[in-house]
Order: sequence, then structure tokens, then C-alpha cells
Amino acid sequence: MMEINDQYFMKIAIDQAKQATATWQNPQVGAVVVKDGEILATGHTQPFGGPHAERDALTKLTPSQTQGATLYVTLEPCNHYGKQPPCTQLIIDRGIKRVVIAETDPHSLVMGKGIAQLRQHGITVVTGVSEQAAAQVNPHYNFFFRHGRPWITLKQAISLDHRVSAGPGQRTVITNRAVYERVHRERARFQGIVIGSTTAIVDDPTLVPQPQPTFMPVRIVLDRRGRLANHPQLKLLHDGLAPTWVFTADPTLADRLSATTARVFCLPTGGVKEVVAAVAKEGLQSLYVEGGPTVHRAFAAADLVEEVTTYIDLRMLGQNGVAAFTPPVPWSFVDRQVELLGDNIRITERKQEHV
Amino acid sequence: MMEINDQYFMKIAIDQAKQATATWQNPQVGAVVVKDGEILATGHTQPFGGPHAERDALTKLTPSQTQGATLYVTLEPCNHYGKQPPCTQLIIDRGIKRVVIAETDPHSLVMGKGIAQLRQHGITVVTGVSEQAAAQVNPHYNFFFRHGRPWITLKQAISLDHRVSAGPGQRTVITNRAVYERVHRERARFQGIVIGSTTAIVDDPTLVPQPQPTFMPVRIVLDRRGRLANHPQLKLLHDGLAPTWVFTADPTLADRLSATTARVFCLPTGGVKEVVAAVAKEGLQSLYVEGGPTVHRAFAAADLVEEVTTYIDLRMLGQNGVAAFTPPVPWSFVDRQVELLGDNIRITERKQEHV
Repeated sequence: MMEINDQYFMKIAIDQAKQATATWQNPQVGAVVVKDGEILATGHTQPFGGPHAERDALTKLTPSQTQGATLYVTLEPCNHYGKQPPCTQLIIDRGIKRVVIAETDPHSLVMGKGIAQLRQHGITVVTGVSEQAAAQVNPHYNFFFRHGRPWITLKQAISLDHRVSAGPGQRTVITNRAVYERVHRERARFQGIVIGSTTAIVDDPTLVPQPQPTFMPVRIVLDRRGRLANHPQLKLLHDGLAPTWVFTADPTLADRLSATTARVFCLPTGGVKEVVAAVAKEGLQSLYVEGGPTVHRAFAAADLVEEVTTYIDLRMLGQNGVAAFTPPVPWSFVDRQVELLGDNIRITERKQEHV
Repeated sequence: MMEINDQYFMKIAIDQAKQATATWQNPQVGAVVVKDGEILATGHTQPFGGPHAERDALTKLTPSQTQGATLYVTLEPCNHYGKQPPCTQLIIDRGIKRVVIAETDPHSLVMGKGIAQLRQHGITVVTGVSEQAAAQVNPHYNFFFRHGRPWITLKQAISLDHRVSAGPGQRTVITNRAVYERVHRERARFQGIVIGSTTAIVDDPTLVPQPQPTFMPVRIVLDRRGRLANHPQLKLLHDGLAPTWVFTADPTLADRLSATTARVFCLPTGGVKEVVAAVAKEGLQSLYVEGGPTVHRAFAAADLVEEVTTYIDLRMLGQNGVAAFTPPVPWSFVDRQVELLGDNIRITERKQEHV
């Protein structure tokens, strides 16, 4: 049963979760140990490969301190061996009497099993306390394990007249310096960054986040027809700054790019549904699809979009400009955020589920 | 010569100018009478047909008060009979010693002649004090008399994917209530509101500003091919709420709309250049071009656009939607203003002159 202070302590655990950094494919989790109404220790997920939040908090205390205490944790404790031993065992060993959980772990290896194990050992388990607030800390992780595919954000930079460049094949810097910096920071929140072969060839980007995160997102190029074979000089094919994966339907491409650092995935058709399935199998939980419009259109047509982030410059590029993507059917959005970045506008919004 | 307090008193005159209302085709002007460093009276343009600012200020004082005083006025005093006798005569009669003027009147009937007459009567005249700030009070008036054609603002309401409706012939409310109210207020700042025959037929708008101004902008429908002949029931053709002018190349249209309250102008081709010339001849100083995209495209192609006001809703209307206008060549802008109206965005910007 919920107690009067559960939400209060869980709020502190959620704030802890938000402080976790470089957790990469691990969720950001926070934990608080409470005894007699007093906080004895807090903890959060340590960088990828390091201790989970429960261990971080509990190991700050002696066994006599944790004996009979309550543990608040934002996500169901794991009960399996990953890079770390199971947290449930530590909780049992440390004599915790009551565990309050915000969110049940959607990860199929955990889902409900951690809770069951704790209860088997006579520990009182309460779930669902401030669940929504806790879930918002790990939207990509949750989405990935609930739906079995990565969270996909389309990102576009457009002029006021909905153009992405001044003309076909022309590299055009649309948005301002503040947008440039924001996009570079934003990339670090994703595990993969997707572009099409046209963008790769015309813009020759490195797609590296700035400042560089501990774990670099994978650079993913969609190259169904194997056009990159004729452009082996592209930076992301040999700079080694981050992994580069090329998805193609051209069975000769792997050989033709063998002198580069790219990993080539050959798929039956090379369509985005196949690409997303392959990326999911590789464990990437989130994709930031930078475009261009052909790539955006393909993701929209495959109905694989969760979020759209649009940067608008107030110029008009005119009729020769390349049009940005339009979805095949009307799209409504929720959680809309609008922000001014100097003389540019940032809009980010969550695509509404079909009704 | 300028004196040390000239800008100070002119600032007060400009603030007076901004308080003028319902001046319609007259400029908003402010005046301040100063003697021995003390403000004796202020005044501003009275509603259309009423006294000008100079008269408004001077007639608040006795002749002995105005004798030897300085008059600050934001626009060159008129020296011709319009709806009012010439202000220069009153200034001379009242014994004003010095006149400080912000802006020379671009109106061809005045331009420099008012100043010349004052000087002939031994009055010291100083011009150009805070000229730019004063000119900004009457951008449409100034533009009209400098260029001999109305100031033209294109207004569009678009979805995030640059659509003006969900599909051809479908009336679509794109933007929110706050935008609706803002557009209704905005209309009152213009002397003509322009739409195309498609918008007239599909949307059947009244185009009346809210709250209703003293002087209603003329409703202008571009109907080159005379399509309105088959739609005599449209509100703006018979509601009598404001004048309606229909511009066409169809010589039969005037007869076919003779039972309506519309005034029909038959032009050789009915193109926008001809329309704008005809509107200028009628004395309208400003046009608010509400569209749709075909009309916007025509004004853009004719290079007759001074300002663009865009309202954006964050939905996407999809591929079946009707695309908004794109200029024939790239357009840059200055004086850009961005404002959030609830979950919609308002952008207004001045088109940069060709360089």
C-alpha cells in the first residue's frame, strides 16, 4: 500500500535519475534509501557498465543501516546478470523491508520478474508511484522495449516556404548558429543518426554531436542503390569518429566499401521497415532522422515516426528550392513545444497515435 | 538649427501622433506647442475630416499664448485646402516663431511647399528631427505617396507542412482562435483586403474587421475570369457591410453582378499590376492580401510585396493539402517579428529591397 510520503521520496529518486549521465543503452534510474522517515542515501545509474542506481545508493550504507529500510527506485530492479549482478539480490541481502517502484521495467528480461523475486523474499513491493513522471526520464528506452523498435524522431531544417535547400544538389545552410549548436547537442540524445545517400554525398557531414558524448551515436546511411560506392572519400566513411552503418540492397556494396571503416548491411529491398528492424536487432533504442526529404517521406510512409523536430528560418528560398517532406495523410501532434532561437524557430512535437 | 530640447519635444509629438484614431487616409500626426521651455498644448490628427494636429494644438491656446512660440510637428504642415483649411496659414496667423518638423510630407500636394511658405513669412523651420521614428507612425501613407502605389502585405495561414487547406475546394480552418481575432484586428490597419475568386467561393468570407473600425477597408475580389457571376449569393456581394470591388477581365461581369452591391472594375487583362494601378488611382494606400496561394503567387511574381505575415499551426495537413505560395526567387527579410499566439506562431517581416 502507498504511504503518505511515497510520492515525496519518489520525486527525489526521479531527480536523482535525471542526474545520471553516459548511461547509453541503460535507463537513467534514481534510488533513495529511507529509514524512520529519514533519507540515508541517494544514488543513480553510473555510466554504462557501472553500478545501477540501487547498488549506487545501497553501497553507500552499512548493512545495519539498510536493515529494515525502504528503497525508492524509479524503475523495477533487475534480477538478471548483465554488466552488473542483479540488484534484487543486493536488496534482499541488505535486509530492505519495503521497495517502492515508479515504473515496471518494460525490458523483457526484467518485466515483473524483479518484483516477483522480491515478494518471494517477504519484501513489501509497491508499484506505480509517480509512474508517469518516472517514465518520462527514459522515453526512448521505454518505447524500444514496449514496441520492439527504436523511437524515431524526424528532424528537419526548413525555410519559411518549406524548402530544405536552394536547389537540387545544392548544399544550403538554412538555419542560424544557435540551431547548429542545438542540433549538435541534440544528436547526443540518440543512439543512431540517419541520413540518406543524397545528404551524405551533397553535404558530406560528420554527424558528430558537440560536445562529444562518451558514447557516440551510430551514423546510419540509407543507400538502397549503393551510390556510396562512388563516394568513398566521404568523411563518415573513413574518419573513424563514430561507427558508420550503411544499409543497402546492393549486394556488391560491402566489397566496394571494404577499404572504408563503414559496416555494410545488405537487405532484401533496403526499405526503411527492413532498416528499422535491423537497427532494432542491433539494440539501438532511438534514431534521429536528419533527412533529407526523401528519407523523411519514407519513414512517414512506413508510419515509423514518433516525434518531429522542425527548425525554421524566416527566409523564403523560392520555387527552385527542394521541398521538405509532407506526410501522406494529415498528422496531429501532442506535447508541442515552440522555442525561439535567435531569429529561428524550434518546434518539437509528439505525433499523435492513430485514433 | 536644432536646439538641445528639440528631440525631447518631438518625442512627445510622436507619442501624440500614435494616439490619433480613425484618421483613415490622413496620416497620424502629433503636435506640441512650446514657449520658454514649457509645453503649452499638445494635439493630434482628429478623425478623418476633422482638424489636423497643428490646428488641434493651436486652437487650445489664445493668440497671445501662441505668439512667439515654437511648434513641434511630426509631419510637414499642409499648405492646401483639403477637408480642412491649410495649417500653414494658421501657424502664420498665430505668430509662431519657429517650426520643428520631423518628416517632410511625401504627399505631392505638400512636399516642401508648406516649409517654403512658412519661411517666406520669416518663420524659422527646422526639419529632420527624429525623422525615422516619426515616419514609422505612417508606413502605409509614406509608402503610398513615395512610390505611387499601395503598401502590400501578404497574409497567409499555413500548416507546419506549408498547406493552406486539407484539399482543393475544402474550406479548412488552419489556425486557432487567437489568430482569428488577431487577423480581424489586423484588417482594420489596411484600406483594402484582397482575396481571389476561389477563396471568395470556397470560404464565403465577409472580411470585416473586428471590432469594426470607423472606416471599413474595401473588400477586393480578383476575378479575372468572371466566376463570381455564378455566385451572386456570396455574402460580400450583398451584405453591404463594407464596399466590395470586383476586378475582372470579363466585360459581361458588371451586368451579371448588377443586382449585387459590388462595384465591378473591368480591366484589359485583370492581372495584379493593373489591379494595383487601379486601386492606387482610387487612393487606397494599403492592401492586406489574404490569398489564397494563386493570388499570393501573382503578387509575388509582379514584385509588388512589401511585407509578409504568416500564421503557422503545428499540424501537418499532408500530401492532399493545397500548397501555400513560394516566391519565384529567394526572398530575404528585415524587421522580422515572431510571436507565439497560444499553440500557433505569428511571423511578420518586411521584404528586403533588391540589392
